[in-house]
Amino acid sequence: MDHISDSTVRRLSNYLRVLDEIASAGEDMVSSHGLAGRSGVTPAQVRKDLSYFGSFGRRGLGYSVAALKAEIRAILGLNKRWRVALVGAGNIGSALFAYKEFGRQGFDIVAVFDNAEDRVGQRLGDLTIEPISEFARLSQQRGVEIGVIATPPRHAQEIAERMIAAGLKGILNFAPRKLFVPDTVALRSVNMAIELESLSFALAHGEPARRAGRRFPLAE
Amino acid sequence: MDHISDSTVRRLSNYLRVLDEIASAGEDMVSSHGLAGRSGVTPAQVRKDLSYFGSFGRRGLGYSVAALKAEIRAILGLNKRWRVALVGAGNIGSALFAYKEFGRQGFDIVAVFDNAEDRVGQRLGDLTIEPISEFARLSQQRGVEIGVIATPPRHAQEIAERMIAAGLKGILNFAPRKLFVPDTVALRSVNMAIELESLSFALAHGEPARRAGRRFPLAE
Repeated sequence: MDHISDSTVRRLSNYLRVLDEIASAGEDMVSSHGLAGRSGVTPAQVRKDLSYFGSFGRRGLGYSVAALKAEIRAILGLNKRWRVALVGAGNIGSALFAYKEFGRQGFDIVAVFDNAEDRVGQRLGDLTIEPISEFARLSQQRGVEIGVIATPPRHAQEIAERMIAAGLKGILNFAPRKLFVPDTVALRSVNMAIELESLSFALAHGEPARRAGRRFPLAE
Repeated sequence: MDHISDSTVRRLSNYLRVLDEIASAGEDMVSSHGLAGRSGVTPAQVRKDLSYFGSFGRRGLGYSVAALKAEIRAILGLNKRWRVALVGAGNIGSALFAYKEFGRQGFDIVAVFDNAEDRVGQRLGDLTIEPISEFARLSQQRGVEIGVIATPPRHAQEIAERMIAAGLKGILNFAPRKLFVPDTVALRSVNMAIELESLSFALAHGEPARRAGRRFPLAE
């Protein structure tokens, strides 16, 4: 499992989402063609992605939806629940807190921090917003493993350093600022403007027209 | 310019961000080594990415920061302003509305829609939240080119169809649901849970340890 690219991991996440929809529709089995068609990739890509992890499915019968979901969840590290601390309780932080998909995928926000005087001490769901100075103590007490940064960009690096100092091993950054972390920490960033830029590139260069030969639905 | 991959476009977005920081620090010139180091890629990658678009920079002197920024902005279609309609004025929609990076990169939210009775008619910034039924009329009137979906997932496909029917050519989707659009429309999706899953994959499989050979800073 040494050379799984980030894009493979993203496709696995996407397959998992498609499998959830297939399961909701009451289907028990799915072919690689079926999974591919609904995921916007080729059947060969589906088979290649799944082959990294051993052999699933049976020729002519396809994959058991439930078994494949369980396997992909295990591969993605979703067969456990992760304890998450959120820093920043503004608009983005509140949106993340309310984002049901996190809980559904096994991520529990167990602590929320902010430094704004009008936020500290307020409730967010069933948590109390705590001051940043309490980060290390409460993270340790609550067994936090992952930190989410939803602060203004100028505070993001300092918060990352607090998270690392508190022993967190993973950081998800929503602040539009490049962060520097040691190699012992896994970092992912979500920059919403980058997605808009990818869209404006596509529009400026007529991507839809160029893609006209591709079949419906469009891959994402 | 026919075969620019999505990952190249993302790296260009990232270079643009790094160049903004370099410009803020008052530096006029940057080498491919300097740009690469701060972007978390190799100098060869930087040169390759920029070579798609013609020849920038001079051997031994590096790149003019201002000229390279202007070139990348033009490549990304950011040398114009885009008119954006936001659908969904809940937590995520409000966060997006307040997200200054959008405006900075040339995206102007010129209309906001929701269907919740307690939201329609309320103000968001200097806009009034309009009912979805007004989407086509107001989008045309205000020259909207890009739609942003920040609704609950069950409404996302229907909203996408409204956007397409109103003539929009680009959609940015924040709802955690796969959307089906014709090939004439460019679609990008931001699924925040996917980033968390990429992080949990990394943590579950010891990515930080595996990456220990990589140099600081970590690429994003």
